[in-house]
Amino acid sequence: MHMTISVAVSGASGYVGGEILRVFSAHPDVEFGALTAHSSAGDRLGLHQPHLPHLADRVIVDTTVENLSGHDVVVLALPHGTSGAIAAQLPPETLVIDCGADHRLASADAWAEYYGGEHSGTWPYGMPELLTADGRQRDNLAGVRRIAAPGCNVTAVTLGLQPGVAAGLVDPTDVVAVLAVGYSGAGKKLATPYLASEALGSAVPYAVGGTHRHIPEIIQNLTSAGADDVKISFTPVLVPMSRGILATITAPLAAGVDPATVREAWIQAYKDEPFMIVLPEGQWPTTAATLGANVALMQVTVDAKAGRVVVVCAIDNLVKGTAGAALQSMNVALGLPETTGLGTIGVAP
Amino acid sequence: MHMTISVAVSGASGYVGGEILRVFSAHPDVEFGALTAHSSAGDRLGLHQPHLPHLADRVIVDTTVENLSGHDVVVLALPHGTSGAIAAQLPPETLVIDCGADHRLASADAWAEYYGGEHSGTWPYGMPELLTADGRQRDNLAGVRRIAAPGCNVTAVTLGLQPGVAAGLVDPTDVVAVLAVGYSGAGKKLATPYLASEALGSAVPYAVGGTHRHIPEIIQNLTSAGADDVKISFTPVLVPMSRGILATITAPLAAGVDPATVREAWIQAYKDEPFMIVLPEGQWPTTAATLGANVALMQVTVDAKAGRVVVVCAIDNLVKGTAGAALQSMNVALGLPETTGLGTIGVAP
Amino acid sequence: MHMTISVAVSGASGYVGGEILRVFSAHPDVEFGALTAHSSAGDRLGLHQPHLPHLADRVIVDTTVENLSGHDVVVLALPHGTSGAIAAQLPPETLVIDCGADHRLASADAWAEYYGGEHSGTWPYGMPELLTADGRQRDNLAGVRRIAAPGCNVTAVTLGLQPGVAAGLVDPTDVVAVLAVGYSGAGKKLATPYLASEALGSAVPYAVGGTHRHIPEIIQNLTSAGADDVKISFTPVLVPMSRGILATITAPLAAGVDPATVREAWIQAYKDEPFMIVLPEGQWPTTAATLGANVALMQVTVDAKAGRVVVVCAIDNLVKGTAGAALQSMNVALGLPETTGLGTIGVAP
Amino acid sequence: MHMTISVAVSGASGYVGGEILRVFSAHPDVEFGALTAHSSAGDRLGLHQPHLPHLADRVIVDTTVENLSGHDVVVLALPHGTSGAIAAQLPPETLVIDCGADHRLASADAWAEYYGGEHSGTWPYGMPELLTADGRQRDNLAGVRRIAAPGCNVTAVTLGLQPGVAAGLVDPTDVVAVLAVGYSGAGKKLATPYLASEALGSAVPYAVGGTHRHIPEIIQNLTSAGADDVKISFTPVLVPMSRGILATITAPLAAGVDPATVREAWIQAYKDEPFMIVLPEGQWPTTAATLGANVALMQVTVDAKAGRVVVVCAIDNLVKGTAGAALQSMNVALGLPETTGLGTIGVAP
Repeated sequence: MHMTISVAVSGASGYVGGEILRVFSAHPDVEFGALTAHSSAGDRLGLHQPHLPHLADRVIVDTTVENLSGHDVVVLALPHGTSGAIAAQLPPETLVIDCGADHRLASADAWAEYYGGEHSGTWPYGMPELLTADGRQRDNLAGVRRIAAPGCNVTAVTLGLQPGVAAGLVDPTDVVAVLAVGYSGAGKKLATPYLASEALGSAVPYAVGGTHRHIPEIIQNLTSAGADDVKISFTPVLVPMSRGILATITAPLAAGVDPATVREAWIQAYKDEPFMIVLPEGQWPTTAATLGANVALMQVTVDAKAGRVVVVCAIDNLVKGTAGAALQSMNVALGLPETTGLGTIGVAP
Repeated sequence: MHMTISVAVSGASGYVGGEILRVFSAHPDVEFGALTAHSSAGDRLGLHQPHLPHLADRVIVDTTVENLSGHDVVVLALPHGTSGAIAAQLPPETLVIDCGADHRLASADAWAEYYGGEHSGTWPYGMPELLTADGRQRDNLAGVRRIAAPGCNVTAVTLGLQPGVAAGLVDPTDVVAVLAVGYSGAGKKLATPYLASEALGSAVPYAVGGTHRHIPEIIQNLTSAGADDVKISFTPVLVPMSRGILATITAPLAAGVDPATVREAWIQAYKDEPFMIVLPEGQWPTTAATLGANVALMQVTVDAKAGRVVVVCAIDNLVKGTAGAALQSMNVALGLPETTGLGTIGVAP
Repeated sequence: MHMTISVAVSGASGYVGGEILRVFSAHPDVEFGALTAHSSAGDRLGLHQPHLPHLADRVIVDTTVENLSGHDVVVLALPHGTSGAIAAQLPPETLVIDCGADHRLASADAWAEYYGGEHSGTWPYGMPELLTADGRQRDNLAGVRRIAAPGCNVTAVTLGLQPGVAAGLVDPTDVVAVLAVGYSGAGKKLATPYLASEALGSAVPYAVGGTHRHIPEIIQNLTSAGADDVKISFTPVLVPMSRGILATITAPLAAGVDPATVREAWIQAYKDEPFMIVLPEGQWPTTAATLGANVALMQVTVDAKAGRVVVVCAIDNLVKGTAGAALQSMNVALGLPETTGLGTIGVAP
Repeated sequence: MHMTISVAVSGASGYVGGEILRVFSAHPDVEFGALTAHSSAGDRLGLHQPHLPHLADRVIVDTTVENLSGHDVVVLALPHGTSGAIAAQLPPETLVIDCGADHRLASADAWAEYYGGEHSGTWPYGMPELLTADGRQRDNLAGVRRIAAPGCNVTAVTLGLQPGVAAGLVDPTDVVAVLAVGYSGAGKKLATPYLASEALGSAVPYAVGGTHRHIPEIIQNLTSAGADDVKISFTPVLVPMSRGILATITAPLAAGVDPATVREAWIQAYKDEPFMIVLPEGQWPTTAATLGANVALMQVTVDAKAGRVVVVCAIDNLVKGTAGAALQSMNVALGLPETTGLGTIGVAP
């Protein structure tokens, strides 16, 4: 017997939309319905996503509730602030996965402070591996019909640090995270800083000093993993690559912790997680090894002189950071094997 | 019923070997046997191929006939000149696929001129789409047990130009091809020109003026496609990308040909080829769209003022240019559906 | 005694404008007057050109004839089609250097065909090394007050091929040029193909098949160098670098020419040219070596089997291809030593 | 009157040696004497440094005391551990500038721990802007004849953080620095991690967890600037660019400090420093803006929620990080104006 899951994708001409199409295409049960967008409605998809020849002749339709209706799953890859209105009009039995930020935060105050405008409400959070008070976030995803896919930078920091937080090995009140990030995270937005001439040969920080919108989401996640109080200095640095996030995350070694026990906590936390890979001691992750794969590669060590645990976590921002998380969460929500259609093999070099 | 094909890979720690492992991993029937190399024998594979976590704990063994024996398929990803001796000692019923150059050329003279040393002999050529006097090269691959996988630059030029040659639309005696090529084609060879500092921000020509070893192989292929005489000016230019070949190929429009008929010849030549994609008129290929995919994207036009047909053909040098061609040829040789385990979806952006 | 040359720059917030400011800053006699732009008028220059700290606090003013008046030299770095109107209102004794295309072509028909709209007229062409019927183009620049700076791709092809044309060594009726070009040539124009995510890891052809606007200008130049008839197949390929053009140019070896004499013609043509460097035999140019320098590096060989001369010429598109050519031409026009403020030293690696 | 300073460069075929030649070429009084190297002795310099056409025909000689003798200045760009022996044999009146690490550290214990082997002794430290107990390090450089040029990563971290340390605004016992660094810092060393295929599209951490050799040098410098105790978590991340360091440096805001006073301390510390540029509020540095320039661009802010000062400092590792520091220090040692031959103008985009 073969079940077919009809999937509509909104924002199909963008980078996230394209990645949803690429990643979901590997799922044996998925069949694409409406592919929607705004300004590119009416175009062949192949004009905007030339790497997806199997869908090249599909015609993009307008992003309307009517076009999105009638599918088992609707994936929204829309600008922040725009998915709430659409989602509200889709039937409750449709599984809606929002790749934007609108429904990630539990706190309306945090939403107001970092995004502004009205909060669209909180949906179950699409990070199955997130540690919770009594298990993992996947327990909260079974059967749900609304999922908020996590932010890409958030994913790298959360997955990288949460084992230490949950085990009480690090002090979460002084986390410092600096991320080397690729440009695809910015989407197809036309702005001077995203031009190739600006990017090539340069490293470019942005949202420095505590202003990045992913901060409250990281705090929310590390709190889920067991922290009472989280403070984080978070700095993303754009570097000349299209995909990839390499997060260097440090936090003070908690008082009284034996450094020799630290790495084992990461191994234990992730030993049953198919997409979380703690590398052999001495080997550090690179973003190249994650390209196209739904994987987080990580390594952890203790810098005894600095008194800090140092974690490096690499992901593909568009896969484990977005589209892969969406598909993985869909599998959980629909009761399918969580790994269906998802792999750990990267395209390198 | 499920058939298992045991595959040994020699040169498993290099770029081509890694890509063989990545691409063949998608084949439902393939099971890897010995993974061999020279200097890295004894290492975990994960040390050299961190993007292949599913094989990370496999231990590389020495490249010996003994280790390679007893498999259904042996893939050789070895330096030029070294595969002949090994292949000669493998049983005739083993399917041996050589990704090196040793067995591609039919002419021992051409071998001597461009490579030097003794010619190892000629094997069936692993490019199923190659046009031949009476069909396609795939007809010559069914049931064979020795396959010479084609050169990557050769693949881009051959697939790009052969429809015009076969249809008599271009004059093959004055072909000019200039290729923008990524660095992975050079393998893991340690030499100053391949250092990142040399590559980043630079375009670097090499083997200019008719000296590149791929030239006789291109001539052989275009002759197969119907040319009586082939002359080609061939210049590869290294550009700052890891993968990808973008070949710009021009040849004079043959006398008396109506330019309006040219593009249709490409469409007809490839209309039944699953991995050959002639883009819609006006859309030109990019290498990014081919990343990780077993596909050749191409477009053709006529420059009436210059009197030349201009083709641009993009491939991933490690996939359609090497490992994908190997797997596709294996499928044909073993009587499996030719597309098994192979896809056209690229990882972009 | 020290002469001061007041220079106004229009388009100061763009890439060409920024490069004019960088290159002209090295000239001991230049003093900048008005720095103008449109949408960025009122901004500190440092906001748009952070690499020019010495000018960071200069305020950009609006591009008006009034603001540009009263300088010894006005450099226009404006979109095509907009400089004619401004230039017409500047006094005849002001040296106006147009870095746009408006005044490069002698043929109004060619203008109409490739650019469209009304032709603004023809100015003396700012390529001092261009070979002419009776010498070099610098002879035509002394004392002039209007200069059309050449196109960047045009510069690479012209400088690369003209020695062979002038000496009758190549057949100019079947030139093929394929150029690896950096993104800065596209300026700060906001369009999807120029986004970093599109550029990184990709090679992207454009204006294929004889449509590029630089073609008539190349033909004009090679005609100046002595060709009766020029036909050229010209294909630029964007590659992931910010600056640089590597032009691979081939043309048939003319009948009866001894291949052994070819390279000497290039050496002789350029032996007194301070910015033209024919590399030692066997060494090929790279764009990295030209970064920031007013230099053309080149090498030439004969591919005897293909019957073609192959030239590779590397320049920095923003320097020898634009701003350096402008300063060099200014020196000639004003009677200063031609090399003042200009150098051949690149920034590498 | 014009003084000529004869300069010999050892390690002239490497990246640091090449940059010494490029940067020192802009000094009006410098004249190059012997250019030495080991394995490339006998080669034309142009073979190894094609961006320096003015020196292309110079022949590299062997690195011997004899060849290096008889110059006013000898610059050593040699592998760590090799300069001590050579320097010891050069006359005391020769100004020897060591771009390697051998003579930077005051502590023989730190040398033994981080580098191993015997300590070659301590030379005056070539960072004129370094804050000291009673002024700046330039006061210690006047008239000296031995200079240890600083490490590149060290330079970015020291210059970025020292104003806050000296003013008591930050707590130096919990510094975290993560650096995006280009590949030229690794020199021309042939090793797999430095291959272009490994670098392109990837971010790669190294020396994670407190093992990097630059750590004791940073501690030494921040101690010079006034810290009693320094602890630093330091992580460099290789990103796909040839040049540039972007250091993100955070330290806790010291108790009782008004955040509003922080930025002013940086402005005051550097207001008379020609090469230290604190950007206007809200503008953050990029490495592209520093390319080729002897400049450090920086910005600082306070993340009140995290309780940390965040500094971002960008330099060109080969200029302000190495060759520019060497020339600047030479100027001071020889009593020349400190800025002679040095500029702040970068090559961008």
